[in-house]
Amino acid sequence: MYKYLDKVNSPQDIKNMTVDELDLLAKDIRKFLVRSVSQTGGHLASNLGVVELTLALHKVFDSPKDKIVWDVGHQSYVHKIITGRKDNFKSLRQFNGMSGFPKESECEHDIFDTGHSSTSISVAQGIACARDIKKEESDVIAVIGDGSITGGMALEALNHVGYTNTDMIIILNDNEMSIDKNVGGMSRYLSSIIRNSTVNKVKDEVEKILQVSPGGNIISKTANKVKDSIISKFIPQECSLFESIGIKYYGPVDGHNTKEIIESLNKAKSKKGPVLLHVITKKGKGYRYAEEQPDKYHGVSKFDIKNGIKASNSVSISNQVGQKLSEMANENENIVAITAAMPSGTGLNIFEKNHPNRYYDVGIAEQHATTFAAGLAKNGMKPYFAVYSSFLQRAYDQIIHDVCITSKPVTFLIDRAGIVGNDGETHHGMFDLSYLNNVPNITVMAPKDSKELDLMLELSLKINSPVAIRYPRGNSYYLEVGSYDPINLYSYEILCQGKDIVILAIGSMVKNALEARDILLEDGINPTIVNARFLKPIDKELLDRLFKDHKKVVTIEDNVITGGFSTNINKFIIDNKYDIDITNIALPEEFIPHGSADEIYNSIGLSPIKIAEKIKSL
Amino acid sequence: MYKYLDKVNSPQDIKNMTVDELDLLAKDIRKFLVRSVSQTGGHLASNLGVVELTLALHKVFDSPKDKIVWDVGHQSYVHKIITGRKDNFKSLRQFNGMSGFPKESECEHDIFDTGHSSTSISVAQGIACARDIKKEESDVIAVIGDGSITGGMALEALNHVGYTNTDMIIILNDNEMSIDKNVGGMSRYLSSIIRNSTVNKVKDEVEKILQVSPGGNIISKTANKVKDSIISKFIPQECSLFESIGIKYYGPVDGHNTKEIIESLNKAKSKKGPVLLHVITKKGKGYRYAEEQPDKYHGVSKFDIKNGIKASNSVSISNQVGQKLSEMANENENIVAITAAMPSGTGLNIFEKNHPNRYYDVGIAEQHATTFAAGLAKNGMKPYFAVYSSFLQRAYDQIIHDVCITSKPVTFLIDRAGIVGNDGETHHGMFDLSYLNNVPNITVMAPKDSKELDLMLELSLKINSPVAIRYPRGNSYYLEVGSYDPINLYSYEILCQGKDIVILAIGSMVKNALEARDILLEDGINPTIVNARFLKPIDKELLDRLFKDHKKVVTIEDNVITGGFSTNINKFIIDNKYDIDITNIALPEEFIPHGSADEIYNSIGLSPIKIAEKIKSL
Repeated sequence: MYKYLDKVNSPQDIKNMTVDELDLLAKDIRKFLVRSVSQTGGHLASNLGVVELTLALHKVFDSPKDKIVWDVGHQSYVHKIITGRKDNFKSLRQFNGMSGFPKESECEHDIFDTGHSSTSISVAQGIACARDIKKEESDVIAVIGDGSITGGMALEALNHVGYTNTDMIIILNDNEMSIDKNVGGMSRYLSSIIRNSTVNKVKDEVEKILQVSPGGNIISKTANKVKDSIISKFIPQECSLFESIGIKYYGPVDGHNTKEIIESLNKAKSKKGPVLLHVITKKGKGYRYAEEQPDKYHGVSKFDIKNGIKASNSVSISNQVGQKLSEMANENENIVAITAAMPSGTGLNIFEKNHPNRYYDVGIAEQHATTFAAGLAKNGMKPYFAVYSSFLQRAYDQIIHDVCITSKPVTFLIDRAGIVGNDGETHHGMFDLSYLNNVPNITVMAPKDSKELDLMLELSLKINSPVAIRYPRGNSYYLEVGSYDPINLYSYEILCQGKDIVILAIGSMVKNALEARDILLEDGINPTIVNARFLKPIDKELLDRLFKDHKKVVTIEDNVITGGFSTNINKFIIDNKYDIDITNIALPEEFIPHGSADEIYNSIGLSPIKIAEKIKSL
Repeated sequence: MYKYLDKVNSPQDIKNMTVDELDLLAKDIRKFLVRSVSQTGGHLASNLGVVELTLALHKVFDSPKDKIVWDVGHQSYVHKIITGRKDNFKSLRQFNGMSGFPKESECEHDIFDTGHSSTSISVAQGIACARDIKKEESDVIAVIGDGSITGGMALEALNHVGYTNTDMIIILNDNEMSIDKNVGGMSRYLSSIIRNSTVNKVKDEVEKILQVSPGGNIISKTANKVKDSIISKFIPQECSLFESIGIKYYGPVDGHNTKEIIESLNKAKSKKGPVLLHVITKKGKGYRYAEEQPDKYHGVSKFDIKNGIKASNSVSISNQVGQKLSEMANENENIVAITAAMPSGTGLNIFEKNHPNRYYDVGIAEQHATTFAAGLAKNGMKPYFAVYSSFLQRAYDQIIHDVCITSKPVTFLIDRAGIVGNDGETHHGMFDLSYLNNVPNITVMAPKDSKELDLMLELSLKINSPVAIRYPRGNSYYLEVGSYDPINLYSYEILCQGKDIVILAIGSMVKNALEARDILLEDGINPTIVNARFLKPIDKELLDRLFKDHKKVVTIEDNVITGGFSTNINKFIIDNKYDIDITNIALPEEFIPHGSADEIYNSIGLSPIKIAEKIKSL
């Protein structure tokens, strides 16, 4: 079916291929990728962009002896194809199927598990330093995008690598994109390099100009003096951002010219010390729709190859948040919005359109985003930082140190809370209730549905201290149960009055609790259902009443069992010595793999059926 | 007593001083600083280094309309003196006294609370962007050291500032030190700028050389071509690390030449867009001992001015850890040690001396340190990252994502856990038990004393998965109670068998529990005391026995009440429906100010007396 791809089952199979053959293989791989991802969903544009680069890497280096570390890892599909896993693409990102990211447990060629951005240089340096201690020989290569390289930890790593002079190669895969269009001073700098031809070419040019200078001794003396003054002082020492901190820079190289990349990789391989190779690629390369709208084809669901992705009729919760915040900003001129390279993912692209002067995309930089928000708040603004739950883990210290110690009115809009589905371990938002719970001064809430989310956004305007609102990935949904009046601060609401058993559910687990109730009613069990919309402070008055009225209490949260919602309820019961049995239903304290959210919730006991079964067993 | 200083009670008082008068004032301030800090203890060397810089800032800018944001903030003493607080230095860093860091609640001139490194550029940019939205006029200045500017979030901020072209000034206070000597590619770059004279001077030189070229038209054409090729392309666009990302660079300036700094600040003030002013200062300037050993005089206790700091006879816990780890590394060649700019603070300077090839100082870069450790572990090493508890908050995501998901055998040596004393809110290690508790796959332990700490270090060698060992600031101490045999994994030990009440204490709180017991015995109360040395997993077997034997259980931990040790014990009791009363003693869920550790523990109920009182009241 694929003339060249069918022959490739391991990196060895491409070692003897000519450049022309590799280019034909690249064609096969692109066809395979588009076909396969159109069936399963997954990351498309980034993988189409690195086909030649991946082939060249496996041609020049000897994996797994040589270690290729993929940053983020959603661009590792070609690598997975080359390393014997093309048949597994049928189960890509599915429950019990192949991961969409590198997984050490999946294959010896996957050197390090990834998912979050900007970790590869640190990992590669660690591997390389260990190699040097053990006096072994191997190449270590980090492949990192221009969006990821400006993440704080990648910059910390560059600073350290340049200093230790560690023998390693950093491939800067420059497609001028994170998921959305890139921002930042370094991004502009990289573009300027491309625009101004190459640093190396300029170096050559300078030397050429000086050498062809006409004239006698004085001139050549002057020319040499110029050379000394300029080249030796500026090049390589100070002239490139990377060379100034001790990393050799080569590039830019056309990332779709297989021959050129192979030559450059061989050159980089032959150098001692750290080398950065700047490779220019095009996201979505080879599939027209993806080339035109790489952000839309970054992560996709199933689609029709011929017609591309169909526009969706449903509104995502993220877009609803962007819309609502934008409307609030029409009325309130102090509202500002911040994203860390996720304008479309968080819905803030809507805000940007309406309020460009009060919108900031800081790049992949959650730490800076948080403290920048604190600075904005200090000077009178009402900042909203919309961010995925698992990425906000990066800003834990800044939340404590810069926002909460002085109780700055920054609101965190925590998207992708709970189980996110197919991205797996690294992307589930399963820790935020725990890591925010122990931080003083912050109010943490989670709505039962999208309509209540709007109410919480409105409520946040009235809270002059730190706030977090968490909500799941997915489409807007309305339960139409309980009240939709403005929320009283720190109040829970009883959605269904039952008896004996009270279920306290937080956030999107309210929906599951209600559905579990429907099942339980059939068995004659009629639990009271409470929308416990504040993680903290809890509604002590309501709980006191309920705990005296009921015999059993069940807490339900889509957060790890330790340190989150259940912790607060357990403590309240213990402190007040209520005579009531408690059962905590939550995510287990373990990392949870990929799959559809429904499958995962079912497998770990948080689906309505499993919740009902658990309650029946009490 | 001080001819010039006595006249200064607000920034207004220095506005009309001449440069000569300011220099005399600087002398007074240095004398005052040395005298004052020798009486109270505090940060010395960094403050002696910024006297002229601070005076110049308050001369040129109009605080608090203009906002001066101090990074870290331990160098804000001169600023505090100038802004009307010199009389408060008697109570510096003391319980209920003046903070050693900027505090918004203390003075309108303190723009933002700090303590951790690398936050100032983000804060200043936030303040400046808010100013621009409000269309107000003011200058915003971030003052950041060369150690702090390589922290990831500062680099993220530089990237963003360069892109937004925000009107603000960054003072790079370059003393080639964090607390210890600086490392990193950027540090070397900054030194090279100083060594090679200045970028600006080189720019001038290039133009001068090209202009004096002899010869006719061809030559000047060539010269111009050279100029175009080099200067326009490289300067300012690419030639300075800072200019390449969009930030104007000026410097270096002699930070002890008041006239030169004032002129440079005025120049920077007049520019639009972001400006970085590189100021060279000497840590400890003006006090011989501090100039010679700035690391030793970074943070000091009381000392004798004439003779300087006396060598201490006691061994700090940190040094004991460094010593023990170094001894273990004699036997085990896979042990590697990592610090984030704290070799002497963590005791790793001892390891460095003995094993320089297996020691890494990554600079102020806790995120990179953690993932770098994971990379080392991936390639067969046994890494130990020694770090202060409150600084490890910076690496929360990396602990989860890079260490724990794949269960890499990285050990975190968490120093300064619990109340640290005079540094206050930002430095207390009060969250680590909570933020580690919710992370899967990590074993967390805390020793009763220094001898058990050694045993835990030995135990960590046998654990092939993530480990954290937390211990307090202070000197080594031995309780000589219970066993000092090798520790069985996840086992607690009963130190004193009593009846009715069982006290479960973790880490340094074992000592307080034992002392509380002595008080209680006088009242005829004889509690059982348990050394609960593992936060998780807990010793279920022992607890089960104890909970059946006793009527009341008290947990004691020097960590915030939410999410830590008590959470696990509470849950164990609830899950197993033990019929036992529980009381949790822990740090309150609020930020705790500075003071001596004893005073603080007493004020929040964790001193032995207060613990005994609490138990008596049950």
